Amino acid sequence: MTAPFERRLERYAELLVRVGVNLQPGQRLLLSADLDAAPLARQVVRHAYLAGAPLVNVIWNDAESTRLRLLHAAPDTLADFPGWRAQLWQDTAERGDAFLHVTSEDPALLAGLAPDLVDRERRGRQRSLQGFADLMRRNAFPWCRAAAPAPAWAARVYPDLPAAQAVSRLWNAVFHANRVDLPDPVQAWRDHLAALEARAALLTARQYRAVHLRGPGTDLEVGLADGHVWVGGASPTPAGVPFAANMPTEEIFTAPHRTRVTGTVRATKPLSLSGTLVEGIEMRFEAGRIVHARADRGEEVLRRALDTDEGARFLGEVALVPGASPVAETGTLFLDSLYDENVACHLAFGYAFQENFAGGDQLTGDEVAARGGNDSLTHVDFMVGSADVTVDGLRGDGSREPLLRDGQWVF
Amino acid sequence: MTAPFERRLERYAELLVRVGVNLQPGQRLLLSADLDAAPLARQVVRHAYLAGAPLVNVIWNDAESTRLRLLHAAPDTLADFPGWRAQLWQDTAERGDAFLHVTSEDPALLAGLAPDLVDRERRGRQRSLQGFADLMRRNAFPWCRAAAPAPAWAARVYPDLPAAQAVSRLWNAVFHANRVDLPDPVQAWRDHLAALEARAALLTARQYRAVHLRGPGTDLEVGLADGHVWVGGASPTPAGVPFAANMPTEEIFTAPHRTRVTGTVRATKPLSLSGTLVEGIEMRFEAGRIVHARADRGEEVLRRALDTDEGARFLGEVALVPGASPVAETGTLFLDSLYDENVACHLAFGYAFQENFAGGDQLTGDEVAARGGNDSLTHVDFMVGSADVTVDGLRGDGSREPLLRDGQWVF
Repeated sequence: MTAPFERRLERYAELLVRVGVNLQPGQRLLLSADLDAAPLARQVVRHAYLAGAPLVNVIWNDAESTRLRLLHAAPDTLADFPGWRAQLWQDTAERGDAFLHVTSEDPALLAGLAPDLVDRERRGRQRSLQGFADLMRRNAFPWCRAAAPAPAWAARVYPDLPAAQAVSRLWNAVFHANRVDLPDPVQAWRDHLAALEARAALLTARQYRAVHLRGPGTDLEVGLADGHVWVGGASPTPAGVPFAANMPTEEIFTAPHRTRVTGTVRATKPLSLSGTLVEGIEMRFEAGRIVHARADRGEEVLRRALDTDEGARFLGEVALVPGASPVAETGTLFLDSLYDENVACHLAFGYAFQENFAGGDQLTGDEVAARGGNDSLTHVDFMVGSADVTVDGLRGDGSREPLLRDGQWVF
Repeated sequence: MTAPFERRLERYAELLVRVGVNLQPGQRLLLSADLDAAPLARQVVRHAYLAGAPLVNVIWNDAESTRLRLLHAAPDTLADFPGWRAQLWQDTAERGDAFLHVTSEDPALLAGLAPDLVDRERRGRQRSLQGFADLMRRNAFPWCRAAAPAPAWAARVYPDLPAAQAVSRLWNAVFHANRVDLPDPVQAWRDHLAALEARAALLTARQYRAVHLRGPGTDLEVGLADGHVWVGGASPTPAGVPFAANMPTEEIFTAPHRTRVTGTVRATKPLSLSGTLVEGIEMRFEAGRIVHARADRGEEVLRRALDTDEGARFLGEVALVPGASPVAETGTLFLDSLYDENVACHLAFGYAFQENFAGGDQLTGDEVAARGGNDSLTHVDFMVGSADVTVDGLRGDGSREPLLRDGQWVF
């Protein structure tokens, strides 16, 4: 017997505040949420003030307003990102305030629009938020990404269900995936994060030269950065306060070596990218660079993302994810990477995270680059794992150790 | 036969863009709207881009989040107004962008809260927005206030109707009051604004020493500022572009002389002030100062508003309004001053508008003060007119001319 919806929503909000950004007394919160997420956002606001926030800045987003801009504004104005917003994001990062980003977007919101227009807006935004993104990559402040079901999103996930039923079912999946229905969700999350950290530490200690992914359409050797660190579970702020950057999170990830990735890979799930569903991605890597990329659907959007800058054609993340977890138990294809990347091994092209390098928060960009870390304005995860994909660790001496078989950890 | 709701909503949005702020090609729009107003706001966004806006900043407000802050945040933090917001408002004003503020608030939203808490937030906000308000008083940029019905507001107006019916009925009243159902609403508005301007010019030419309001509980002589200007209809930006600061608007208003108001006045309608309904206001003026003020309900909130600063105890506006207009035809007590002040003569305590002084946009604050103009952080309208209240103009030679009888213009 599950609790009533309102109670589960409140527990979820409490998780986001207490575990996600782990808000400390006296710390401000910047909450970015879609209009549809208002009931959840209000519970977050309430818990943030109860936790001692002096101020919660709620910035509401409306995907439809963005779409109207792309449809009707002059194309040469689309790259103008609002200065106040860039400044608020930057100030939040520099002050070390907490940042919680709750998305609810239709994964195919911008599907009908000219990719060039979508791209102009994206590039303007990424350029304006670069300083913020740099501080985020360094975990200079606690941040968390979460999602709240909304009608358009739910309709994509469950196209055959009536609207209200689809939303309700997606909420059930979100609650389950986030351990909301366990007797003590906060403690369950703390235990879960600790287990991920322990497994990440095991992998880091092994200092594999590479990981090797093999499955249908995939035979990829991903060389790892020098002095790489596997990260899973919570990340620490500079003050040492742990936060969970993604909720849910089941992954253990590290930084590939920029130039040591070779082979081919086939995505195992569709990807919502810039408001378009990209399906059937296939890529070939030579000396780390994506020299060929195609997709059955949405290829143009994929190509534009890869053309963001030179760094977009190299990997910034490789993540190992088991096939058994509360997220996987939902059996749901969420069409949102936040969820789908937590049931499948994945890669990301674009920038690497600072925390994936030993002593990372002290390293300059040049030092990260010298160890093989990639830099870019963008960072796009795509799913390449499944029960049919095996993952091995390759030691410097050429020996090989199994890491994932049939979607299960074997170490 | 009226048009379908969606069509009427779009016409209303078009009026706000083309007549309200009268957006010019290349001009940005700052749109401040409640979450409940999303359908209207999106139509405004669309029409703004169609009118050539390079960027529409939509800042969404959520009254419930404000209430949660007042309920749960530490009291000594409530005066912290978000810096980004003050800066965005200030930048908008200084750039001469258009500003459209759409409210949907429950007129009694904060009724149950300690007035001291509400007051802390209000003072912090007014202090932070002072620079913006100064530029607004000078019409340095085009601005417009409008309202969009929402469930909580509609429930106060029609407490006996089911929720959906109340909202629908309030929308009908809003559309009617704003001439949305006329064949060519934009032209109807231009004609209406021109008629108000003509009548205001007539009154300005007369340069009355004072206006005299008499009715049940009211016998008030409101001395007018030296070189006062009656304003009605559109106001011009510095570039001469006319805009309608309030939609609807039926008033003709000017600046009282700060120290030349004497007598008593009784409000004829309730007033929603700081989220509380204030009813049965009575005031006594001596040498312009409110020396006594009481209310049957909400007196504490009224008292705090009057205690904002010394200027809050003096009048900044006297407005004459006829009892016959599309707003009046709705027969609705809106519990929102934007509407209720447009069916009844009203006064405002607090600051005066620059445009109510000859050559006002060139005058310094000291020059305005020398002519009797009042200054304050606040400006609160309250309704004192009805069919039972007569208004006369008093000439310098002691003669008297009737202006309003039985709620009708008689000049």
